[in-house]
Amino acid sequence: MTKTFAAPVITARQLLDQWQGHRRLTRRVIAAFPEKDLFEFSIGGMRPFAQMAEEMIKMGGPGVRGVATGIWEHQEWRDLQYKTKDELLKAWDETTETIEETWNKIPAYRFQDIDAAFGQYEGVLYSTILYFIDNEIHHRGQGYVYLRALGIEPPAFFMR
Amino acid sequence: MTKTFAAPVITARQLLDQWQGHRRLTRRVIAAFPEKDLFEFSIGGMRPFAQMAEEMIKMGGPGVRGVATGIWEHQEWRDLQYKTKDELLKAWDETTETIEETWNKIPAYRFQDIDAAFGQYEGVLYSTILYFIDNEIHHRGQGYVYLRALGIEPPAFFMR
Repeated sequence: MTKTFAAPVITARQLLDQWQGHRRLTRRVIAAFPEKDLFEFSIGGMRPFAQMAEEMIKMGGPGVRGVATGIWEHQEWRDLQYKTKDELLKAWDETTETIEETWNKIPAYRFQDIDAAFGQYEGVLYSTILYFIDNEIHHRGQGYVYLRALGIEPPAFFMR
Repeated sequence: MTKTFAAPVITARQLLDQWQGHRRLTRRVIAAFPEKDLFEFSIGGMRPFAQMAEEMIKMGGPGVRGVATGIWEHQEWRDLQYKTKDELLKAWDETTETIEETWNKIPAYRFQDIDAAFGQYEGVLYSTILYFIDNEIHHRGQGYVYLRALGIEPPAFFMR
């Protein structure tokens, strides 16, 4: 019997499915915002939800390509690219495709490989991927507060 | 070479360390709230952060014991138990200990076993554990908005 600490918890396929489930939920959160509030509403000086979603897009697709290939495309985190909800949702869906298509090309050893994500953030790559996912959950939780403050019922957290 | 989809991504030890890193951050978020705001401040009709933290406590320790043993202790999710920040932080630290001590007793096969968490939420147990962690990240993100709305700088997300 495998010793617990050394036991694998989750396969690459299962982690992909988890993430894509989260991404479906995040897409519903983007869609739930009124157009104007998506780009302008904010609490306590924080970024509007569109900016957080754009960060997830810039991190997600290029991030998974970086994990798969070791090539990290430079991202302009502060220059905002998407100006409407439709543009944002289209980029969101392209990222979903990119992640889906790239995932199975990640060499298996890479999950335990050390690399500097985007040339800056060194870590074991499983933790880099978890950072992408956790960052999305974190900011999406903030989007829930924005929606509630706007009087809008957010999509159910457990529905993926 | 292992096919990517079947490749293990993370060991039990690594997932424990990830979670405990998140729990250290969540503890700092609890501690950052002024006593009164921890129990009373809310946006858009949401729960105060103390209630979210109590849910994490009730889910975390008993949840890991359930994963390890198959015995799920009944939780009174709505009856609030902790009335001060000190009580909450003490319970938080006890949960940290419980998770640390119980984790290595989880039989390795349990991560891919199907069980109904707390007698209600059926799923493969790796996804149950990820739900505990994701739920914490989600609500902690909401705590960040509360802190910002209160004019308090939250602890850095990447510091674990």
